[in-house]
Amino acid sequence: MIAGETYTWDRDTDEATARRRWMHQPPGVTLVAVDDRADDHDDDKVVGTAEIHPNQGGGGRHVANAGFVVDPAHGGRGVGRLLGEAAIARAGDDGYTAMVFNAVVATNAHAVALWCSLGFEVLATIPEAFEHPTEGRVGLLVMHRRL
Amino acid sequence: MIAGETYTWDRDTDEATARRRWMHQPPGVTLVAVDDRADDHDDDKVVGTAEIHPNQGGGGRHVANAGFVVDPAHGGRGVGRLLGEAAIARAGDDGYTAMVFNAVVATNAHAVALWCSLGFEVLATIPEAFEHPTEGRVGLLVMHRRL
Repeated sequence: MIAGETYTWDRDTDEATARRRWMHQPPGVTLVAVDDRADDHDDDKVVGTAEIHPNQGGGGRHVANAGFVVDPAHGGRGVGRLLGEAAIARAGDDGYTAMVFNAVVATNAHAVALWCSLGFEVLATIPEAFEHPTEGRVGLLVMHRRL
Repeated sequence: MIAGETYTWDRDTDEATARRRWMHQPPGVTLVAVDDRADDHDDDKVVGTAEIHPNQGGGGRHVANAGFVVDPAHGGRGVGRLLGEAAIARAGDDGYTAMVFNAVVATNAHAVALWCSLGFEVLATIPEAFEHPTEGRVGLLVMHRRL
């Protein structure tokens, strides 16, 4: 769902920082998608993860932001969609009234199509806000869905 | 410029957290507006402050986000405009190609007018994204200016 070239995290983010940013204090939550097929694994395996947290503090806490990562080795299996659906459901259960994404890379057609299919709409394109490693400066979409 | 009721920070943010969030690691910078009139003060006095930092990590680092606070005791003296102009200049000097605000409270007419007069335009309104203490749920504006 999120291709490696479309992260808006620094590439040299160390593991401690990544863990702290991904596994939030409440009310933030972290979800994992687990592959429970027998396969060649002895144990269940995390194939993707989502995190949900308030997009703003103070008077903005009722709108959620979420982030998603899918193990590239498990791309194309619907893991992103599963996580998206789970995040929408969980955010609704947690009392958020909407979910907003601040920075969907405009050329990440797979992600944009996925979010649109899950009820998100594009509110704006921040022009040339993302330096794509192969496509140059492309827009970042602000996407929104009521819950 | 930023009225007390329009913060998107939690109201119970403690000082240590506020300092950490406001005074960034490089390339983030913090500016202060100092009242150097003689007045009834013995020393120069900070009457407002701005902070500038990359709005996104990774491929999004060339677009700045900024925050502003003006001491309410010094409102109406142009401190917000001065800080806005200073932040725009500094962000340009620091190599950012644009500045974006993610959450300008739509009913904060003074702030919206100020940012428009400084060359920002509204890219989107995130609907009902801010719980205003007296006006109910109002929009949050995404505003943008090239540098």
